[in-house]
Amino acid sequence: MRIVVDAMGSDNHPEPDVMGAVAAAREWGDEIILVGDEERIRAVLARQDTANLPLRVVHAGEVITMTDVPSEASRQKQDSSMHVGMNLVKAGKADAFVSAGNTGGVLAVAMLQTLRRIRGIKRPALGVLFPIKGNPMLIDNGANADARPEFLLQFAQIGSLYVERVRGVPNPRVALLSNGEEEGKGNELIKETIPLLAGSGLNYIGNVEPKEFIFGAADVAVADGFTGNIIMKTAEAIASYMSETIREEIKANPLTTLGGLLARPAFARVRRRLDPDEVGGAPLLGVDGVVIVAHGRSSAYAIKQAVGQARQAVAHDIVGAIRAGVAANPSSEKVEIQQ
Amino acid sequence: MRIVVDAMGSDNHPEPDVMGAVAAAREWGDEIILVGDEERIRAVLARQDTANLPLRVVHAGEVITMTDVPSEASRQKQDSSMHVGMNLVKAGKADAFVSAGNTGGVLAVAMLQTLRRIRGIKRPALGVLFPIKGNPMLIDNGANADARPEFLLQFAQIGSLYVERVRGVPNPRVALLSNGEEEGKGNELIKETIPLLAGSGLNYIGNVEPKEFIFGAADVAVADGFTGNIIMKTAEAIASYMSETIREEIKANPLTTLGGLLARPAFARVRRRLDPDEVGGAPLLGVDGVVIVAHGRSSAYAIKQAVGQARQAVAHDIVGAIRAGVAANPSSEKVEIQQ
Repeated sequence: MRIVVDAMGSDNHPEPDVMGAVAAAREWGDEIILVGDEERIRAVLARQDTANLPLRVVHAGEVITMTDVPSEASRQKQDSSMHVGMNLVKAGKADAFVSAGNTGGVLAVAMLQTLRRIRGIKRPALGVLFPIKGNPMLIDNGANADARPEFLLQFAQIGSLYVERVRGVPNPRVALLSNGEEEGKGNELIKETIPLLAGSGLNYIGNVEPKEFIFGAADVAVADGFTGNIIMKTAEAIASYMSETIREEIKANPLTTLGGLLARPAFARVRRRLDPDEVGGAPLLGVDGVVIVAHGRSSAYAIKQAVGQARQAVAHDIVGAIRAGVAANPSSEKVEIQQ
Repeated sequence: MRIVVDAMGSDNHPEPDVMGAVAAAREWGDEIILVGDEERIRAVLARQDTANLPLRVVHAGEVITMTDVPSEASRQKQDSSMHVGMNLVKAGKADAFVSAGNTGGVLAVAMLQTLRRIRGIKRPALGVLFPIKGNPMLIDNGANADARPEFLLQFAQIGSLYVERVRGVPNPRVALLSNGEEEGKGNELIKETIPLLAGSGLNYIGNVEPKEFIFGAADVAVADGFTGNIIMKTAEAIASYMSETIREEIKANPLTTLGGLLARPAFARVRRRLDPDEVGGAPLLGVDGVVIVAHGRSSAYAIKQAVGQARQAVAHDIVGAIRAGVAANPSSEKVEIQQ
């Protein structure tokens, strides 16, 4: 297996990206292709022990930055690490692409410039695996800020395929993420999507509220990308606000400070259990190649985990499965991607 | 001041509702009118010391339950505690209405059957005060699952008025709740609302992500009711999931268990700081009367706090302020409420 890692992706690139790639090569022995500024990549590699590791460097002269406007940068920076990396996958010279870079940039380069959509896919979607028990998938997590019922139906289909094939969950429970379980709850989009899911042949269990999703009631929760992204960001914000509040209150007096010190290993375990770095990136589903998007603030460990996620997706041929799934659920409607 | 408390509202009615009303009468000395099943209300009152408290009971023969369909129940149960209570406000016999009942029911009875909208208000909205530092308001919190840009503009106006007048925040910072600060982020609704807010004369500070909102970047964050409700429910779900995870990990070994015991007062303070009961209910803004909606699972304390919120709203004449605000920002467009 040959996996491309975008060396220019993370906020602190290229260090975490390169070091994560090295760790992945060491752990699994698969070939890792580092794409980006060759000189900077080699400078980081020179500080590691990489003897005998299956690492390769491919130079790319441009970088799509966090502040670039995705649609423009994807057109103008054709020699970016994202373009070069995904073109390796497209040409069959690599099996997957991993990036912690500008998410919109990855989406635009994948969908509009390089890999493009799998035939029959209306809109690719980002499926994030929540760092909670069972790692249920929330899809879409921001690829499509506005969606239509037939898009949500396809998100459900490809999310269910991923969770079944790659995560090994038999017959995944698929739900619509809504503000109430009852029929009649939800916005127009939700209400119009319900009959499509009910007739989809998926294991559709109805609407779930955020609480039910967080407590494991579904394996795949479907939302438009705006809602999905807001949920993920709210979850992260509350977790961080609560941690800060707990820290403040524990430090407020000597006895609770002592208690906090004794309980420290428990807090460390909580942090690990809720760490988004553990699940290792979000698959961009529906493009014609395996693409995993990691957090901008990814550590080397998060990059390594994202490579792990990519390996699983390749090993279980998720792209072939989605292609076959779309063929089995043909759609008469043609939809063009709009910018 | 005379405040109506819906005695049949909370999940465990009438106990918490009646006891909260008693506590409010005791604390502030305002007249509290308990509306609902007189016999059941008096049975709870008989167990309290209510001598000399300004409490009154008004009988209502029906109850809108949590499982009722709001639009139907609001039409059919004209003798519900919600109808009777809000009609007291409408008739000028009371100054505010507080209920922990079916939120959709309160909205429907208020908007369609009793108080109705203030002239010029397109859509009333629920403004929830987040139990985080500074208690910023998120509006709408579920009154309108689908919204249009001109509705969001009005939510911003009435939310800003409430926070300024009732909460005493000068020149409130108003933001759109979105999945990114950058222009270009957000869904179509957000993008179309930006120019309206920019030209509104409000202290509009741009888009905020959930993280910025949670950490206090805005005094009023505006969203459609679906998104707002999802954010609130996600926040509650994550807080409860984290608490459970922390409890599990602390109990996992004797030393961290001891630490947890010592740190217990800190956890109690955290719980109090993040307790939605403290802020005491969400004002329904834009209807022609003060209406405060409390959580279904409200305790007596939460009901008392909701009465406190109602008192503030009455004292600062929020209805008059909104009426004047709408007159100052007239709209040429007429919109009918659809069911």
